[in-house]
Amino acid sequence: MNELKNFSDNNNKTVAIQGLGFVGSVMSLVCANSINEDYNVIGVEAPTIHGENLVENLNNGNFPLYCEDPKIEMFYKKTISKGNFIATTSTDAYLFADVIIVDINLDVEKENSDSGSLKSFNVDLSSFKNAIKSIGNKCKPDALILIETTVPPGTCSDIVMPIIYDSLKERNLATDNIKIGHSYERVMPGPDYIDSIQNFYRVYSGVDERSANAVESFLHTIIRTDEYPLTRLDNTNSTEIAKVLENSYRAMNIAFMVEWSRFSEEAGVNLYDIINAIRLRPTHANLMYPGIGVGGYCLTKDALLASWARQNLFNSDESLGQSEMAININDQMPRFAFEFLIKHFSNLSKSKILFLGISYRGDIGDTRSTPVEKLYNYINNECQNILCHDPYVKYWDEKSLTIEQDLEKQLHSSPNLILITAGHSIYKDDKTIKAILKLKPLFIYDIIGLLSPENIRVLMTKHKVKVLGRGDI
Amino acid sequence: MNELKNFSDNNNKTVAIQGLGFVGSVMSLVCANSINEDYNVIGVEAPTIHGENLVENLNNGNFPLYCEDPKIEMFYKKTISKGNFIATTSTDAYLFADVIIVDINLDVEKENSDSGSLKSFNVDLSSFKNAIKSIGNKCKPDALILIETTVPPGTCSDIVMPIIYDSLKERNLATDNIKIGHSYERVMPGPDYIDSIQNFYRVYSGVDERSANAVESFLHTIIRTDEYPLTRLDNTNSTEIAKVLENSYRAMNIAFMVEWSRFSEEAGVNLYDIINAIRLRPTHANLMYPGIGVGGYCLTKDALLASWARQNLFNSDESLGQSEMAININDQMPRFAFEFLIKHFSNLSKSKILFLGISYRGDIGDTRSTPVEKLYNYINNECQNILCHDPYVKYWDEKSLTIEQDLEKQLHSSPNLILITAGHSIYKDDKTIKAILKLKPLFIYDIIGLLSPENIRVLMTKHKVKVLGRGDI
Repeated sequence: MNELKNFSDNNNKTVAIQGLGFVGSVMSLVCANSINEDYNVIGVEAPTIHGENLVENLNNGNFPLYCEDPKIEMFYKKTISKGNFIATTSTDAYLFADVIIVDINLDVEKENSDSGSLKSFNVDLSSFKNAIKSIGNKCKPDALILIETTVPPGTCSDIVMPIIYDSLKERNLATDNIKIGHSYERVMPGPDYIDSIQNFYRVYSGVDERSANAVESFLHTIIRTDEYPLTRLDNTNSTEIAKVLENSYRAMNIAFMVEWSRFSEEAGVNLYDIINAIRLRPTHANLMYPGIGVGGYCLTKDALLASWARQNLFNSDESLGQSEMAININDQMPRFAFEFLIKHFSNLSKSKILFLGISYRGDIGDTRSTPVEKLYNYINNECQNILCHDPYVKYWDEKSLTIEQDLEKQLHSSPNLILITAGHSIYKDDKTIKAILKLKPLFIYDIIGLLSPENIRVLMTKHKVKVLGRGDI
Repeated sequence: MNELKNFSDNNNKTVAIQGLGFVGSVMSLVCANSINEDYNVIGVEAPTIHGENLVENLNNGNFPLYCEDPKIEMFYKKTISKGNFIATTSTDAYLFADVIIVDINLDVEKENSDSGSLKSFNVDLSSFKNAIKSIGNKCKPDALILIETTVPPGTCSDIVMPIIYDSLKERNLATDNIKIGHSYERVMPGPDYIDSIQNFYRVYSGVDERSANAVESFLHTIIRTDEYPLTRLDNTNSTEIAKVLENSYRAMNIAFMVEWSRFSEEAGVNLYDIINAIRLRPTHANLMYPGIGVGGYCLTKDALLASWARQNLFNSDESLGQSEMAININDQMPRFAFEFLIKHFSNLSKSKILFLGISYRGDIGDTRSTPVEKLYNYINNECQNILCHDPYVKYWDEKSLTIEQDLEKQLHSSPNLILITAGHSIYKDDKTIKAILKLKPLFIYDIIGLLSPENIRVLMTKHKVKVLGRGDI
């Protein structure tokens, strides 16, 4: 407590960030490198083994994320030299914070069948409520509490506000000056990680006008709002719906392409060419390409948060059926990819298989809900001889696997089937392509469409490598 | 026959267009006003009463479509003065044609429940096959037959080609020189009608390379391909899928917003504001606004054509479930709009109700599958005192109703509920708004979101008009 007190005992305002995951850790850097304020920034993690490790790393110069964005290292080094960031597992941080940003996870418990289809799901708010309560127990009565976590619509007004107000009353403090707002992040892990916070549009709201004003003032200090103007919405329900709506929209657009990619396979047409032709239409320019599946923390669940909220917080008889269907379709994509593979590649059990990339997205070491995990499991049931490579993942938590970092070494071990499963830049390098070309006989399954039609043409005609890509047989 | 022979007896090539509906009639004008060729253009309609009327009108200076595009009249007048267009109900037209363009309808038979939900559907190809057969019976053996009709994927290669080849063989003609291609139109009835053909991207294909080359050469004569380059796809399956995919995509995006608009109503948030906030993201810039429903000939059926083809022409066990669901949701929109109305406006039976716009789209007189028809029917069950206005529809075929053209007269008859159901420019005129403001007490249900937030604010606060808009209560 004394350490935190001393840390924040200066003329600068203090920002506490609850949750130091893929959003909170980078948000900490952005706040510590504010555009026009000198903030003291305290990162707060839960006192689990994982949390203690994370805090120790962060306080000892080891930033816990590997990715392609050079700004991450730059911002982190600046922060260290300024000495305006500290990590802790103590909730005492909230005692000293003028702004408390909530960046913890709020999970959806999904039950999927063996084929991946979504059987049922539930939302348990208890740990989220506890986290909010831990803020209410210690926050200053005039703090700004800013929820960035993706929550079921209705949460800020029906859950966060009552908990905070009750906590303040229990502490015999007035509730007139507390400010509670919602502004969702649009963090995109990868090469533009920092910019996806600092240089991007934001939507915000407050539980009352005072709160909304406070959120607005704060956002002006961390976002380049001259280029990316803020949008205020009427109430927290609106911004909460906006967040899950935009992610549901994206999930649905992906699911749409999944269905059509299966039809295209049946009809023997090249879906990539078709999509490119249609994308010339401005109204259709954001058609997605089919891929291995949807991963990450948002697109795999946000539609379900919304549908759950509609039924449980707004007491509707109806779900968001179409958006739920999108999740269901997307969850089955790794299974489709697997079935497509065994249809065209019969000797799976006797193969040596190399996965190139296990992250769910290019140029970032993020394996949360990665569809590669499901595909790995399906293939692993048939074949034990599997190698992996990912330049951004040293240890695959979910599979408890150490991941080889040396691509050349993995290629030299002579796999006869290569699955391209993440769009890391290194796989597009001429050097890599050349190294791959030396391996024969070889079968490549480019599930994510990383190889260009020209690459494929050269591989297939000149080098007699069999290349299989979805929609491109 | 002699008339047609004389008409095409010159050094110019002759184009015959089968089907003179919303696509074929305008396509005729575009061909007759080719960029770099002097075509003789023969429009062909079936010899029904409707067809005979249409042909007579076209040959006597009365173009059968009312819409806002001044180019339509300009092109039609030019055509008349050049004398290079004639309409006929005789299939003898195909005897003289170098290019035959198929622009007839291919319908989906839908069965909807009372609430609008889609119960079942079927595709009957028999009349389409007959139309193709009528071409095969008479076409030159070296003609180019260009299918523009939206067809179930697989149709050109599995249905059109065999029919044409068989017909030529029956006529003891070689099949080596016939050319069969597919290039779907993206006609958008309304203010940019002509431009949606002449100044827009096109995708095309042929059943063989010779055919594809012939299509390409022809398209260069009617489309400004310097600005809007053509895209060739591998085969007719590809272009057929592209067409139904792009319309299914749009139908799905609309359906998505329908579901979320219902959730937004329950949560009491303004969905328009939310959409505007999200649309700042380039990846989400084409989010649709919720409206009264989907109308017109394409979006209400194309996903079903595709799903039918997947199961019936490609023998898949699976449908395109998500795309079918979109049609199902959209088909229920008029019912949702009706239920929303009666929830907020109780005395329907004693009201005088004015519909502003019955077309499915702004600034065009097109009532095919207009959702206004369904809404009209629901309301008509409760209330007999209904007035309509539409500046582009003199006679509402589907309802056998003469439509008043004088807006002022309709407003003077003192309706106490106005439904804004089509986005015609005239309804946004200051003059109209002022006239509406004189009517009190008044309730306006702006189903399509034509009024701006500022309009609504003025109407509600200054003029005490109750305005109801979806997602804006």
